[in-house]
Parts: sequence; C-alpha cells; structure tokens
Amino acid sequence: MARIVQKFGGTSVADTDRIRAVAEKVKREINVGNEVAVLLSAMSGVTNQLVAYVDDVSNLYDAREYDTVVSTGEQVTVGLLALVLQGMGIPARSWLGWQVPIRTDNVHSKARIKDIESAELDKRMKAGEVPVVAGFQGLSAENRVTTLGRGGTDTSAVALAVALGADRCDIYTDVDGVYTTDPRIVPHAKKLERVTYEEMLEMASLGTKVLQTRAVEMAMKHGQRIQVLSSFEDVPGTLVVDEDEIVEQELVSGIAYSRDEAKITLVSVRDQPGVAAAIFGPLSEASINVDMIVQSVSGDGESTDMTFTVAENDLERAVETLKALKDQLGCDDIMFDSNVVKVSVIGVGMHSHAGVAQTMFGALAEKGINIQVISTSEIKVSVLIDEEYMELALRSLHAAYGLDAK
Amino acid sequence: MARIVQKFGGTSVADTDRIRAVAEKVKREINVGNEVAVLLSAMSGVTNQLVAYVDDVSNLYDAREYDTVVSTGEQVTVGLLALVLQGMGIPARSWLGWQVPIRTDNVHSKARIKDIESAELDKRMKAGEVPVVAGFQGLSAENRVTTLGRGGTDTSAVALAVALGADRCDIYTDVDGVYTTDPRIVPHAKKLERVTYEEMLEMASLGTKVLQTRAVEMAMKHGQRIQVLSSFEDVPGTLVVDEDEIVEQELVSGIAYSRDEAKITLVSVRDQPGVAAAIFGPLSEASINVDMIVQSVSGDGESTDMTFTVAENDLERAVETLKALKDQLGCDDIMFDSNVVKVSVIGVGMHSHAGVAQTMFGALAEKGINIQVISTSEIKVSVLIDEEYMELALRSLHAAYGLDAK
Repeated sequence: MARIVQKFGGTSVADTDRIRAVAEKVKREINVGNEVAVLLSAMSGVTNQLVAYVDDVSNLYDAREYDTVVSTGEQVTVGLLALVLQGMGIPARSWLGWQVPIRTDNVHSKARIKDIESAELDKRMKAGEVPVVAGFQGLSAENRVTTLGRGGTDTSAVALAVALGADRCDIYTDVDGVYTTDPRIVPHAKKLERVTYEEMLEMASLGTKVLQTRAVEMAMKHGQRIQVLSSFEDVPGTLVVDEDEIVEQELVSGIAYSRDEAKITLVSVRDQPGVAAAIFGPLSEASINVDMIVQSVSGDGESTDMTFTVAENDLERAVETLKALKDQLGCDDIMFDSNVVKVSVIGVGMHSHAGVAQTMFGALAEKGINIQVISTSEIKVSVLIDEEYMELALRSLHAAYGLDAK
Repeated sequence: MARIVQKFGGTSVADTDRIRAVAEKVKREINVGNEVAVLLSAMSGVTNQLVAYVDDVSNLYDAREYDTVVSTGEQVTVGLLALVLQGMGIPARSWLGWQVPIRTDNVHSKARIKDIESAELDKRMKAGEVPVVAGFQGLSAENRVTTLGRGGTDTSAVALAVALGADRCDIYTDVDGVYTTDPRIVPHAKKLERVTYEEMLEMASLGTKVLQTRAVEMAMKHGQRIQVLSSFEDVPGTLVVDEDEIVEQELVSGIAYSRDEAKITLVSVRDQPGVAAAIFGPLSEASINVDMIVQSVSGDGESTDMTFTVAENDLERAVETLKALKDQLGCDDIMFDSNVVKVSVIGVGMHSHAGVAQTMFGALAEKGINIQVISTSEIKVSVLIDEEYMELALRSLHAAYGLDAK
C-alpha cells in the first residue's frame, strides 16, 4: 500500500467527461489498495476568462481581489470531482485552500506556501476518504484567499505530497513524460524512465515546460518523488527522483533548447573596474534578467566588447535602458540579435566526467554551426547559436551523446 | 447620514458594464455621506451553468459539494465590484460567507442564517470602507460552504442589514417597485409608495415575485425597512415597512394573481369524521401542498363533495395519489381542472373594515364571473375563477377598489 497525491491540470478537467476520466484514474489507485489525495486545476480556459474580467474592470488591480476572483475555478472542479467519486462509491470530500488550510504568505497573486495543516486530511485518508484539494490557492494570515501564480498547482501538489508524507506525487499532464529532447524535432527522442531533480530543474529553466521550476525545487528540498505522466494515454511516465535512486547514470540525460533568447553586444566599452556593475545594475533595476555573459579580451587593454543574452520580450526595454548609458560607458555601438537560440546539454553524470563539453563543440563544429556564447554549470553546458541551425544542432547532439532510440 | 445595505441581483451584475453601473449607485450613496455595504448575486446565468455541471456529474448529489460548486458565482462578482470601487477611489473589500462569517445551519443547499459576525464590517464601514459581501452563501459549523437556496440573496441582504443595524435595505431588481397589480395586465396599475410587511408577504406567496418570502419574514421580525427599486431606472421605489409607518392606510393595497393553480373535486365522498384526514394525509406525505379547500353541504347527510386546489405541476401526482384512495373514500368520481387562476385582494386595512369581500364578489358578479372557491385571511380574500376571466377580473377589481391611477 502506498500513499499517492495525484495532480490534474486544466486540460485534464476541461469538462465533465474529462472529470469522469480523472475519477477513473483515482479509482484505479484505490482499487490496488493505495491511499489517494487529489489536487486539481480549474477547467482549462476558465482562469483566463476570470483574469479577463479583472483586466476589464481595473487597470491597477488590488491583488487581493484578483485572487478572490481567479481562485473560483478550482472550487468548481474539486466539488464536481468529489461528486463523481461519491457516485462511484468512493468516499470523497472537496477542500478549498482556506479549509485545509494551506497557509501562505501575503504576497497576493504569487504567494508562497508556508505550511499545510494536514492532520485532518491524514486522518480521513486513513479512514478511506479521498480529499480533493483545490490547487493554486491558499489562505493568508489576514484570512484572505491567496493564489500561487500561474502554474502554481504543480507547487500545491508537491507541497501537499510533502505534508502528507506521500510516497509519490503523480503529475498528470498532456505529455506522457520527460524526453531526452523535443520529440517533435528529434523523432528519435526517448522517454526517460528516471531523471534527477537537478536535471529536471535545468530542463525546466532551459525551456522544457513539463514541470514548474518552483515545484521541482520544493520536491528536491524534501526528497519528494514525482512522476510525470499522461492524462490521456495509459503508459508509465517519468520519475523525478534523487540522484541516489538512479543506479546507472547516463553522462547526458537530455538536450534542451530555448527560442526565447536575444543577444546584445556593447561594442568597445571601457575596460575598467566597475563597468559590469554599471551595465547590469540598471538592467536589474528594470527587472530584466541577464543570462549568459561573455566579455571578450581586449587587444589594447583599454576597451572590451561585452555580450550577453536577455529574454526576447525584454530586448526592446534592455536596449532602451542601455542607450541611456552609452556615453557613460564609452560604448561605440549597441548591437542586438533575436535570431538566436540557446541549446543546452544536461546531465548530472557530467560533473564527474571530462569531455562532455568537448563532444558538444565537436558535434556542432562538424556541422559548421558557429557557437556565439558559451556558459556552463556543474550539470549543463549551454551554447547560443543562430536560430536556423536549431533543429540540426538538436539532432546532431542527440546522436553524438548516444541518446537516439534504437 | 444613514447606513444602507444595497443588494443587486443577477441581472444587475450580468457583465462588467453592469457592475460598473452598480458601482455608480454605491458612489451616489457615499457622496451624500451614507455608509454603504453591498450584497451581490452571481452574474445571471452563471449559477444555472454551475447547477447544470452538478446535474451532469451526479444524480444523487451530496449537497455539501453542490454548495461548494454553486457558491463560486458570487465570489467572482464581489471581487470585481470591489476592484471597480477601488478604481473610483472608494475603499472597498470583498467578503465571502466564510470570511464574515455568515453562520448558517448545516442544511446544505437551503441553509438558514443563524448569526452574522458584523463587528469587523461595522468597524470598517465607520472608517469609510465599503464591504462587498457575497450573497446566497454562508458557513456551517463544520467549516463548509452553505448556500441559502435560489433567491437566497434577498435573505442574505436583509440579514446583513439587521446585523449592521442599517437604516434601510435597498433591494435593486428589474422592476422599479411594488405595484397595486401587474402593470402588464392592468395599465392603470400604480406603484405603491409604501407597503406593509404583511401585505408584501401575502403578495409574495400569492404570486408577486418581487421579494423572497423568507426575506420579508425576516424583515418583519426585526422591523428592518426595505426599499424595492430598479437597477436600471433612476426612480424612487417602494418602501416595505411596519404598519405604524403608514399613516393613511388604504383598505386594499393590491390585487395579486397566480396561474399556478389546479382544482380537484372528489365527487360524493362519505361524509363522516376523519374523511378530510384520509384525503389530505396521503397528499401531505407525497409533499403536495393543498391550498384552498371547500366542502359542500350534502343533501342526504351521507355524502359530500370535496374541492381543493394544488400547484399546477403537482396535479398529476395528486390525482394518482387520490385514485388509489377512491374505494376507501367511497368516492364516485375525481374531477380536475387546471384552467383556473387564483385572484386575491390584499390589504392590512381590511381587517378593521367590513364589506371588502362584498365589494369583490359584487364586482365579479357584475361581469358574470363565477367564483369557484373562496378563502380568506385577516388581510386578504382569494377566489378561484376560470382562467379566461383573469384579465377582466383584475381590471374590474382594480377599479372597484379605487386603485386606478388618475
């Protein structure tokens, strides 16, 4: 017997037929003797409609009222699923954020979970009841409804699994697991049986939209096992687990990519202490995240070129901000290019093996793909390349690391 | 300075434009120095959609989950109105049933309000804030959302007004007040400036769908003044008040009618003790309400005809129930007719004046309208007539009591 938290997103509860299908998945776990708690999103599209109402009535909205309005979607789905389960003879009860309660901080519309009072749910699960908990929402110390921000239901699910001491948190979604790379681009891509938290985190932040970064961070912190699996197909998914649980670690477990990148080069800025702070301070103040940074070695020792990347939709604001600094930096020119992609090779195995980066550079060179910027961490190597080479780069790297399915 | 509770129904908050119009009505009261609390329904149509979801997923629904689902509509409108008011510079805050809290009993889907904790709202109103409270919902002792049944928002509004010691409870609706009779049938109908609780109660139970019966009962019990007025036209409404507040009481204040009537006659039942119980006991067990009852005097002293009315959509079940009793009652035949209407003359003045009923009978006789059944109370006389005479009867009675507008 195991204790499992099942999370279903908006497309999985899009209408009453889908909600009935969710109930079947709950029933299957119950039938094999498991204890189950369920966590749901709103019907897909509903939260967007609610946000549209808020946008319509108010420019400068009070996030407390925003949360009151947008948290209603989950309230509908949890009530409906509880009814369907009851109709199937499975004792079930809906739980809203304030009823559990799921306590959060007061940062409305992007609150963080502080504590979940799980004793009552625990007792009921032991007695055979299925708690159906509203995702995405919580309760502030001021007795007001909070929401966790878009996609926060993954985080709710992991937090609930941790609070209930669940053996596994099953995240049902519209893909059937985590792949070595995007199967739409590389048909040879393989579904991973297991992936580590660290790899999943890198994949999430590098563009693989399977799990929310915050949810993975929380799972990693608490050692909570997650399974990513399909709501629509009945196949095993991918387990996200601690490195220790993966016996034979591949050097590289996946190739991620992100199109949402733009490159900026400040030509010939003064090469002196404090220049980086003078550039990146104002960008940070404008809430623009800078990712990869390269400072080229200057020939004359007096000036240098500074290249870095920002998110594509921050590009215009970043360039405006930098233009105002041009004279102060002694910069000759500001160049920018949004036709770039970031391709990353990820694997917890690589930190104990040399040569991973070299394989990447070699594979790209062989296809004549120019690397514009490089950045590395313990478990990933990222390169910025011209956008038109993206598919070629993914396929080449996937083969070079021996990831192609047989 | 006065303290006012404003209640707006579903058509008054049907979309974001209507919600903005509601905010203007709040602002007007604030501008003249009044303290205001607002109570809202869901957008019209939304609650029906939610009920349809519940019906779709479950035949034998758990009313606790029904309440969880259907109470979300008001949560959306209160959040949106709070935002609009804030945008107009009026401090406002939404309040859900569990936040106030509005405590109810545990009878889910038709709960009754037991207590409203108003101290916090009172404090905030004194400080100039407008509480925007979700109607129709409350909190059970088991910490679950309850709803008060369809139309329960009127009751929420009156209960809130009582709890806050409001000078007036303004019920905004799609009619602009209470009329002497239905203006669609009698163009000379006049809007009443004032009407007593007792008259309003009779009108509500006799088919005038302006205010919910429970809301009027509660207002009467606590002496809470109500005003019924239009959301869409800017004209004074009708005040519902204690009899003492009406200086010059008309004998008759209104003529009500109800088409939802059916007449049943049991021909020649045994005229002996216990026969009424033998007929009406089984109907009551079948949850069929019997209204007007007439027992004709028998010629032979051995049998009698028994005539009574039921709601039109209970007719079929009532006849089936009675057929099973036919032999036991010694009844020759069961006759029924749904082409009947009940017309009632209402007025608190009539209990101290003779002749009110006589005026009614005379006016109907003059037009050749046959009275089939009569019933009376302290403040009303009702007659059952053939449906095709309804408009003629209403116009004649309206004129006979001097109610026609000059």
